[in-house]
Amino acid sequence: MANPFSFRLLATDGTARSGEIATAHGLVRTPAFMPVGTQAAIKGVHHDDVRASGADILLGNTYHLMLRPGAERVAALGGLHAFMNWPHPILTDSGGFQVMSLSALRKVAEMGVTFRSHIDGAMVELTPERAIEVQNLLGSDIAMQLDECVSLPAERGEIERAMQLSLRWAERCKRAFEGAAPGRALFGIVQGGDDQSLREASARALVGIGFDGYAIGGLAVGETQDVMLNIVGGTAPALPADRPRYLMGVGTPADLLEAVARGIDMFDCVLPTRNGRHGLAFTRFGPVNIKNAHHAEDLRPLDPESRCPAARDFSRAYLHHLFKAGEALGGTLLSVVNLFYYQDLMAGARAAIAAGQFADYAAQTKDQWTAKRDQRMP
Amino acid sequence: MANPFSFRLLATDGTARSGEIATAHGLVRTPAFMPVGTQAAIKGVHHDDVRASGADILLGNTYHLMLRPGAERVAALGGLHAFMNWPHPILTDSGGFQVMSLSALRKVAEMGVTFRSHIDGAMVELTPERAIEVQNLLGSDIAMQLDECVSLPAERGEIERAMQLSLRWAERCKRAFEGAAPGRALFGIVQGGDDQSLREASARALVGIGFDGYAIGGLAVGETQDVMLNIVGGTAPALPADRPRYLMGVGTPADLLEAVARGIDMFDCVLPTRNGRHGLAFTRFGPVNIKNAHHAEDLRPLDPESRCPAARDFSRAYLHHLFKAGEALGGTLLSVVNLFYYQDLMAGARAAIAAGQFADYAAQTKDQWTAKRDQRMP
Repeated sequence: MANPFSFRLLATDGTARSGEIATAHGLVRTPAFMPVGTQAAIKGVHHDDVRASGADILLGNTYHLMLRPGAERVAALGGLHAFMNWPHPILTDSGGFQVMSLSALRKVAEMGVTFRSHIDGAMVELTPERAIEVQNLLGSDIAMQLDECVSLPAERGEIERAMQLSLRWAERCKRAFEGAAPGRALFGIVQGGDDQSLREASARALVGIGFDGYAIGGLAVGETQDVMLNIVGGTAPALPADRPRYLMGVGTPADLLEAVARGIDMFDCVLPTRNGRHGLAFTRFGPVNIKNAHHAEDLRPLDPESRCPAARDFSRAYLHHLFKAGEALGGTLLSVVNLFYYQDLMAGARAAIAAGQFADYAAQTKDQWTAKRDQRMP
Repeated sequence: MANPFSFRLLATDGTARSGEIATAHGLVRTPAFMPVGTQAAIKGVHHDDVRASGADILLGNTYHLMLRPGAERVAALGGLHAFMNWPHPILTDSGGFQVMSLSALRKVAEMGVTFRSHIDGAMVELTPERAIEVQNLLGSDIAMQLDECVSLPAERGEIERAMQLSLRWAERCKRAFEGAAPGRALFGIVQGGDDQSLREASARALVGIGFDGYAIGGLAVGETQDVMLNIVGGTAPALPADRPRYLMGVGTPADLLEAVARGIDMFDCVLPTRNGRHGLAFTRFGPVNIKNAHHAEDLRPLDPESRCPAARDFSRAYLHHLFKAGEALGGTLLSVVNLFYYQDLMAGARAAIAAGQFADYAAQTKDQWTAKRDQRMP
């Protein structure tokens, strides 16, 4: 029998927390960063490198996987873990966010959302029940409720309507999830845009329904970092301390530190791989745009003390050349560098929280990004 | 002091040979397959995977590297081995072949070839002396003479003219190479198209000049496999037994087996990586076009007994999905599978030659490609 899903809080430091999520496929140390494996692959990066970076858990996108190769097909092939050969924890989103961002034609109704597939133009219906069914077929360790996410800025009325609809969908998802395989978890998603009272109402109602964990959705959709952090800071305390808190789609290294300080346990974001493919490396000494001409003869590696081989073994000059020459290896190497950096940032946060020094850790980390910007190395 | 370049014949089996080339950067076991690192990178594949496949030596393209990042820049950065962090043997071609195949505007004269860079449109001159200078700057272990390669079919007069010019350039390259760093080698290139008498004349004249090794160039440029193998079979015996023989730009697994049987020691070809990127895997059971729809639900790996993790760890269904979804990881994984396959083919050839069973090995290998084509697995 699979181990039940559980969350154990190991340490708190102010509002920052560190803990451990147990799933049927292994442990997730929190604060955790989840690399995004949209189409059952982390773009350009081998699973072995993702794992070596320290990732305990991946995110898979329900929207993409239900369209291609199809949830029923993934199930027939043994589920997402077996299909992609990632035997560790996986979280799937509900598909709702991508419907809003990728599908040109879509219609939101009480029943669910109907959209035109961006792949073959077919009309597809995604209801709360189907979102759960798809995630059951994929077999993810953590499933997400279907929600409606509105871009900011938006009218309060529109934000409230989407928040209330998301709550009704949350209830339907909870019912649909009953009888799912043991050991799997379902998270609710707080909506409410940039309105703190709506956020609190959403959180309260979700806690009333009762979920294994709670996400804060509908952020990083056009608002400033200040607005985002205010909402996070106001919403986290409204969520139960004994359940994991997941801030969806966020963010930069600075966003992560600020959100951890406010009590967030889990993150996902495409930034490490997307920026890596475009030539931006995250390092202890701040971001490095490797395409800049001044790297063309720079023999220094990105970080000689990194845990990441690609950050140690190759000169900036060579990485610069790979980008100039259009060699895909450049994007792969920088993606790996960035995945390691994000995991190291989270590992540092966990250790600092355990030691009761998270504020110092965050301050020193940020200082180092800017202090040596001129030379970008010690 | 660097070890001198040397070639040691370890075994012969009919006209097939196995041996060992010693360079300042290590040994090359022959018959050897050299993956092509055109722009100081094997397309889409990490050096670690190239090395793990069993590659003793890489090929770098002088044409590309002289244009970007530039030979002087590579030299300033410590040479090609340090620049790309490949501390093992490297062979560089002379640039002549790419001038012919990539540059729209070019003019061949006695002095050398003038061409328009495909990158920035600049006019560039490549003389025999400059080809050697560039390769000295790159610091490759094995340098190639500049030659003129004509596409087939061609008139005998045109083939002879290019062959004679290549011989005069061979002499100039030999002179220019005097005083190159110890331990480095220079190979001459037999030309003469599909004309056996011209090939023999070219070989005789090159041996008269005296090189550390001899290549057969100007093949795999439009002729049939029969014509190619006839020329190889006729030319190899005209080359000294105590020097390595390199068949340039060839070829398929079948080409390699046939050429090894005729006494060839070294090969380079873009097929394993180019075909890999396009969804074609070379396996013990013949080629597999992973994009074919019948792989969509095929749980079998490409080869459960392969030495290559990618051939064992991922189902054909997953690899198929990666190509259908446009995930670059698919091309990377199949490139790695193919690089392992080519190296294993050469390792098998070396062992078979040592055991005096090369003909059996070649026949059994080819039988296996076709015998199980229906199921593509045992």
